Amino acid sequence: MTYCLAISHDDGIIFASDSRTNAGVDYVTSYTKMHVFQPLNDRIIVLLSAGNLATTQEVLDTLNLHLAQNILPNLASVTSMPEAVQYVGQVSQQVQNRHLNALNRYGFSGDTTFILGGQIGNQDHGIYMIYPQGNYIKASKQTPYLQIGESKYGKPILDRTANCNYSLDDYARIALVSLDATIQSNISVGLPIDLAIYKKDSLVLDNKNSYDESTPNYREITQSWKNQLSGAIFNLPKFDWEK
Amino acid sequence: MTYCLAISHDDGIIFASDSRTNAGVDYVTSYTKMHVFQPLNDRIIVLLSAGNLATTQEVLDTLNLHLAQNILPNLASVTSMPEAVQYVGQVSQQVQNRHLNALNRYGFSGDTTFILGGQIGNQDHGIYMIYPQGNYIKASKQTPYLQIGESKYGKPILDRTANCNYSLDDYARIALVSLDATIQSNISVGLPIDLAIYKKDSLVLDNKNSYDESTPNYREITQSWKNQLSGAIFNLPKFDWEK
Repeated sequence: MTYCLAISHDDGIIFASDSRTNAGVDYVTSYTKMHVFQPLNDRIIVLLSAGNLATTQEVLDTLNLHLAQNILPNLASVTSMPEAVQYVGQVSQQVQNRHLNALNRYGFSGDTTFILGGQIGNQDHGIYMIYPQGNYIKASKQTPYLQIGESKYGKPILDRTANCNYSLDDYARIALVSLDATIQSNISVGLPIDLAIYKKDSLVLDNKNSYDESTPNYREITQSWKNQLSGAIFNLPKFDWEK
Repeated sequence: MTYCLAISHDDGIIFASDSRTNAGVDYVTSYTKMHVFQPLNDRIIVLLSAGNLATTQEVLDTLNLHLAQNILPNLASVTSMPEAVQYVGQVSQQVQNRHLNALNRYGFSGDTTFILGGQIGNQDHGIYMIYPQGNYIKASKQTPYLQIGESKYGKPILDRTANCNYSLDDYARIALVSLDATIQSNISVGLPIDLAIYKKDSLVLDNKNSYDESTPNYREITQSWKNQLSGAIFNLPKFDWEK
């Protein structure tokens, strides 16, 4: 399984993803699920992926092939984020359709879901979820985050902090907490975490790092969160019968 | 959907359940999912239910019928918690099998999962999960809680606080927080919450109450939790690049 998360903010975008993939319980491996494309200096496009690893890799290879051989459309030719999203959705459908019959014969699913985010030129930055069917939705002001994969464990902290007055860096910490909650509760989601921060209009991806237990920032933040939660339990108001 | 939770503690047991049931989005209703049996003074048995409402009601009716007509075994005749669990598992299977063909014909599932907890005489108190297939597991020292229904949203707070040195009343607050997190993130789980506290060897169910936004205890606890989480975000250690 997988857990990927993107949070849209007035000042930019947070991208976060775990890196565990598994086919059953026997074949557990580590792959990054965060893929960065910058075919021209006027654009930055980040793709997070959840689902069939073979589909994901063939989609990525196809996106790169289209760029290398200048097959149109591609991530350099698209002129807006919606155009980029529609293009990736089409490539995803093509790859899945190519293997559909063979996968069905063995009872496998080739489904892959993507989050695509970034900015092109001086247009608005944004994040989109691309369904396995190739259609998509955009995050809204009211629901500024998108999740794919094993999303339920990490959702409460997002619902409690969405639309609050936090900085972009605060939301990077919230993303780590959301990933950490999922990793603690579900063995199919695992370290390291890829975390990247995009500051709007910069057209570069700042502070893209990999975090695990050996990373001081990760250890300090998750330990602080755990300690603060433990303390918060003791500070909750008492029931009437305890007073 | 439904979310029910039981936490076993050296000093007793916490039982908590939401009360929303729905068949599709049109037929949303409120039913308690916490059912208390005390057929004799030497025992208290609490049943939490998640799944098909018709199955649940017929199982409860059958348990009551067996008691009323003294059909053996029943919840008064069983001599231990495992015996009680096996008996309820058998009744659940009988009810489901009775309707299996008719439900299958319409593509419905009659599955119901139960949590059964309590104490008989001076034996150990305990909590058990009864699967739709009638078999069961018991909570352990290492994993002292059991969840049924929509369990993922409320699991992180349990994983972070399991095996900590909290009192029985603290775990009642943790149960409210776990239910509240689920209600905030999932529309199929809803207020009011039934919460009950069993103190071991008391053989009575203390402080069984219904909580919703109009209940001061619930409002205070969930608001305090929300405020403390918001504050905790600000208190998290900074990333290296912010220093």
